Amino acid sequence: MVKAAVIGASGYAGQELVRLLYHHPEAEIVYLGSRSLEGNPLSDSFRSMADSDRYRFRASNLRDAAEEANIIFLALPHGIAAGAVDKEILQKAKVIDLGADFRLRSLDAYRLWYHLDHPGGSVFDSAVYGLCELHRKAIAPARLVANPGCYTTCSILSLAPLLAEGEIDLSMPIVVDAKSGVSGAGRSPGEAFHFPECNESLKAYKVGTHRHTPEIEQELSLLAGTQVTVQFTPHLVPMNRGILVTAYCRPNGKAEALRIEELYRTFYADEPFVKILGKAEGLPETRWVRGSNRCDIGFYYDERTGLLMVIGVIDNLVKGAAGQAVQNMNIISSLPETMGLTNYAMFP
Amino acid sequence: MVKAAVIGASGYAGQELVRLLYHHPEAEIVYLGSRSLEGNPLSDSFRSMADSDRYRFRASNLRDAAEEANIIFLALPHGIAAGAVDKEILQKAKVIDLGADFRLRSLDAYRLWYHLDHPGGSVFDSAVYGLCELHRKAIAPARLVANPGCYTTCSILSLAPLLAEGEIDLSMPIVVDAKSGVSGAGRSPGEAFHFPECNESLKAYKVGTHRHTPEIEQELSLLAGTQVTVQFTPHLVPMNRGILVTAYCRPNGKAEALRIEELYRTFYADEPFVKILGKAEGLPETRWVRGSNRCDIGFYYDERTGLLMVIGVIDNLVKGAAGQAVQNMNIISSLPETMGLTNYAMFP
Amino acid sequence: MVKAAVIGASGYAGQELVRLLYHHPEAEIVYLGSRSLEGNPLSDSFRSMADSDRYRFRASNLRDAAEEANIIFLALPHGIAAGAVDKEILQKAKVIDLGADFRLRSLDAYRLWYHLDHPGGSVFDSAVYGLCELHRKAIAPARLVANPGCYTTCSILSLAPLLAEGEIDLSMPIVVDAKSGVSGAGRSPGEAFHFPECNESLKAYKVGTHRHTPEIEQELSLLAGTQVTVQFTPHLVPMNRGILVTAYCRPNGKAEALRIEELYRTFYADEPFVKILGKAEGLPETRWVRGSNRCDIGFYYDERTGLLMVIGVIDNLVKGAAGQAVQNMNIISSLPETMGLTNYAMFP
Amino acid sequence: MVKAAVIGASGYAGQELVRLLYHHPEAEIVYLGSRSLEGNPLSDSFRSMADSDRYRFRASNLRDAAEEANIIFLALPHGIAAGAVDKEILQKAKVIDLGADFRLRSLDAYRLWYHLDHPGGSVFDSAVYGLCELHRKAIAPARLVANPGCYTTCSILSLAPLLAEGEIDLSMPIVVDAKSGVSGAGRSPGEAFHFPECNESLKAYKVGTHRHTPEIEQELSLLAGTQVTVQFTPHLVPMNRGILVTAYCRPNGKAEALRIEELYRTFYADEPFVKILGKAEGLPETRWVRGSNRCDIGFYYDERTGLLMVIGVIDNLVKGAAGQAVQNMNIISSLPETMGLTNYAMFP
Repeated sequence: MVKAAVIGASGYAGQELVRLLYHHPEAEIVYLGSRSLEGNPLSDSFRSMADSDRYRFRASNLRDAAEEANIIFLALPHGIAAGAVDKEILQKAKVIDLGADFRLRSLDAYRLWYHLDHPGGSVFDSAVYGLCELHRKAIAPARLVANPGCYTTCSILSLAPLLAEGEIDLSMPIVVDAKSGVSGAGRSPGEAFHFPECNESLKAYKVGTHRHTPEIEQELSLLAGTQVTVQFTPHLVPMNRGILVTAYCRPNGKAEALRIEELYRTFYADEPFVKILGKAEGLPETRWVRGSNRCDIGFYYDERTGLLMVIGVIDNLVKGAAGQAVQNMNIISSLPETMGLTNYAMFP
Repeated sequence: MVKAAVIGASGYAGQELVRLLYHHPEAEIVYLGSRSLEGNPLSDSFRSMADSDRYRFRASNLRDAAEEANIIFLALPHGIAAGAVDKEILQKAKVIDLGADFRLRSLDAYRLWYHLDHPGGSVFDSAVYGLCELHRKAIAPARLVANPGCYTTCSILSLAPLLAEGEIDLSMPIVVDAKSGVSGAGRSPGEAFHFPECNESLKAYKVGTHRHTPEIEQELSLLAGTQVTVQFTPHLVPMNRGILVTAYCRPNGKAEALRIEELYRTFYADEPFVKILGKAEGLPETRWVRGSNRCDIGFYYDERTGLLMVIGVIDNLVKGAAGQAVQNMNIISSLPETMGLTNYAMFP
Repeated sequence: MVKAAVIGASGYAGQELVRLLYHHPEAEIVYLGSRSLEGNPLSDSFRSMADSDRYRFRASNLRDAAEEANIIFLALPHGIAAGAVDKEILQKAKVIDLGADFRLRSLDAYRLWYHLDHPGGSVFDSAVYGLCELHRKAIAPARLVANPGCYTTCSILSLAPLLAEGEIDLSMPIVVDAKSGVSGAGRSPGEAFHFPECNESLKAYKVGTHRHTPEIEQELSLLAGTQVTVQFTPHLVPMNRGILVTAYCRPNGKAEALRIEELYRTFYADEPFVKILGKAEGLPETRWVRGSNRCDIGFYYDERTGLLMVIGVIDNLVKGAAGQAVQNMNIISSLPETMGLTNYAMFP
Repeated sequence: MVKAAVIGASGYAGQELVRLLYHHPEAEIVYLGSRSLEGNPLSDSFRSMADSDRYRFRASNLRDAAEEANIIFLALPHGIAAGAVDKEILQKAKVIDLGADFRLRSLDAYRLWYHLDHPGGSVFDSAVYGLCELHRKAIAPARLVANPGCYTTCSILSLAPLLAEGEIDLSMPIVVDAKSGVSGAGRSPGEAFHFPECNESLKAYKVGTHRHTPEIEQELSLLAGTQVTVQFTPHLVPMNRGILVTAYCRPNGKAEALRIEELYRTFYADEPFVKILGKAEGLPETRWVRGSNRCDIGFYYDERTGLLMVIGVIDNLVKGAAGQAVQNMNIISSLPETMGLTNYAMFP
């Protein structure tokens, strides 16, 4: 039985984690940390859980959590985990960090995109990038897993087979036009997410500067064996959950629909959380993955233009955050990878 | 293991039922019937289910279903089940009808409100009204259970303790102002539910004529031991799921908040799916029950006006339809009543 | 030409006022005051206006505004206008206050409901309640107009004819179940109005304590010539604009639909902004008044229960705030009452 | 005074046209044609208009309309206008066609993309493509104007200056990732637009096959003086109105932000309905153009990738349909081009 701690448990990713862990047959929540809600019962901020008054937020303290838990989930703003996770903690507990501090393998890239220094060191070096479908083997023995970002997960899964197989002409940057529901922006109120401001409206934001860009490039470059450049543009869509990525790239050769479908089906054979949609099944829609840990992927090769479009969808809070974190927990705990993650999306 | 058939499986209630049964540890789906989708795989209309192509819709045929299933769920328009369920079927399988045909115990009331004739007879006489919290004992041995309506469930649960305890001055009709998300209207497209028509708008509908009215009155009257009159007004709210009922009534005596809370807590003691919100917990909101089988109830006694307000919320597709149907299945199958229904609401 | 000042111009009511005044053929905006945005161009917070950079927010200062404007609109939190409007200001300019400080004619009621003291005095005494359809004659010569609240306007207009004609049995409190879009909560971010918190959810709030209650009662009592008690319950609906009021009352005698319709049509004969919906026209929906200054009213008398339901809708920012303020401006400026307010609702 | 007929007046574009014409100081509606609603008052389908019962739908008959009107607006499904507009009609009235039949100058392209034959002929030859900002001079004397599509208008306006100035390296197809609110799909109910199906979800559709593609390419090619290839991908967003286009292209040389801004400001100098957003103003959002005839355009040049992003927004029913149609009416009627179109967007 995993004894799990969640630090930063009051945000959307934290609470989704609590929901998934609560129902997980081999996990037990032993510590919920929240700086802002210390002392309050969980039910104050998450009234869905009928008996959640038996949980109470404690201090957002890793060292305390490491005394009671054997796996600690961190759902903290970037810049905090980098300094807070140390060898001593990792000796007592494994850490799955839903934040950004251990995702980029290059400290220079971190400094450039996050405008923050990073201590680096052996803890940093020991971190494994937790995109389960790509790094399962490296994740299994890790004590520190960097859970990928939401846009990142969807973008990488959508493009991985093409880059791994050298199908893309990299002289054209891969265009990743991504759209997300508002829960991706977190639970802190602000004018941009005030209901009447973002309801019934649509916008692009952080064009050219969004911090998931280097993460996508890092992983796609690893797969391609050469530097991959991505033009990543996020958009805010008036709905609660869901990410849809529309990627545009130029294939090296002809990208007949059937061959591409085959390539994806082979690459993701036996992956329980990736579903490839063939021509008969239409294109992915976020409603079909809402609440599930699945990533649906479809594609269209346009002979007219010579471009290949890949469309992927996930639930940003599940496969894009808490679900993948539980999937990582399962991997590092030698549990079946799908345990606690088999529920279907709720529709509508 | 329950062998379950769902007839009318392609609508919202039907599909929610499929989702719940699929995850239910003691149920197996053996028959999915749909008139409009006969022959198609389930995945065509419910793409959430990754492996749903292993299910295929068959004819909407009770007799066939009764050969394979021991419990048949009906999710059909009113007027069909009345003639289709007969003794022979009930000998082979138990039936849980999510439609309206066996809910009203008075055939006259049925004819008056539904403008349809009803054959009545011994099958009709054997039906039990399946509001689990009120009729658990009668449901257990039944072979035909009439699953309550969505508005009905929320309205009755919200008011039952007051009527059972004779707290209401019945000379004033009880006002039940109810609001529902759009999935309550079903899955058939029509101008009223075309996105741009109902998004960003609000309306009352079927004022004074909605067919859940006699159902609410029937049950409240039973509890009160005398005729109860209800003024029921439904409203359409631009959201997918959720019902909120605001009930106004005049207590016989003083209705101090604490005493009322106590009365509700006593009435619903040990009920796993009813949560009473005391003053500290605020009033119910539909978001906290979305996807769960729970009914949350809160109240406010206004000394200034002498009126008592009770506010109840449910998820119309779960406690208001498929969830309660599974709860009824558990009861008639001697399974733990909460089995397969313990998942928390997903938020947000 | 009216020279208009708007103090508190950065909120939703303030900006709607700016929009209406900008298009008004006989008004000119000469002063925009905002405490939080002093010095900024209007376009920073209201990018709809292509040339709005020619307006710049100035201090939220009534005395300065009174030097340049002959009509000052106040859109301020309650408690500020009470002390800020004085004789000197009223000598220089007329004031239309969109806030609550001059609406209640009883200082005791103000203190009770607002938990604030109020200086009262001759300025307070001179204020006229600005529900145009009821107080047009008193408004015309006024120098200080208290623009009604949003819920208030819709509730009073919906019920006025019944009380004026003595049709209601007042021994039963009038139940006013009201529902509002989120812009009614203002533009300040907060957890309750953070998109993922209120999207796809529904709740009642301030049950029994909402401050529009005494305002509704004051006006209905005036019409009835006796004390009227109202049970007012507001609800938050996930949409931007719109208020729908469902009122329940007990008529003194039989309330045949046709007679009631006639009574309303007579009461509101020649009112350009009130539309009575007869049986053929169905019931009001908020979409048909979005962006317009109209109030649509429909009704249903339920012979079965003896209750009469009246349903009214307005756009909370237009007839419920800025539109009615412009209507008041027209009245006190001897302009045609509909000037600048004739645009139809935009649909969808 | 323009005497205007609207044929196909019951859809969203048709009704928006009615709204704009109704408020237009120099237009009078003399004929409303609707096949499905012939005989019904306008108010049945457009209850916003308080006095709309004075209008009644007549047959969808161009010849009749041409007897009474001097300008006929067509808002019909494609394939109808091609055969219905003839010389005789054009002698009596000018026609502004909001449909697709006269937009493509190549009949082959029409047959290829619409899978329909087209009679062509002198009427077809006389048609002028009505994107006002580009073809104002040709529109002025025209008797048949092909009003551009919604996606088309936004895409072309967003990219026109770059192509006109030869700034784009055309060896990479221009990627146009477009997102639209649901009113763009029209008013006919269908499963895809049933509220619970498209609310809280996001999808791409008609990938590689959407019929606005050849229209965008036709106009951009004209501007570039060479064939331009566009990869156009539309997405459906759960909101009523608004289109946002995110275009990706590779500039020939360095595309410093300031130079590009200057180029756009010069190209659109004196255009009343195009607003260029510089760095300080942020990027376009659909909420700021809702209800207005404006197109807002912003951009970002990414030195890292060498790509230039252009983002444009319009209201699909105004600048994308009815508003531009009125703008065309003003041009061919020698009225000021902004007449009847100056209202600001309503916010929120």
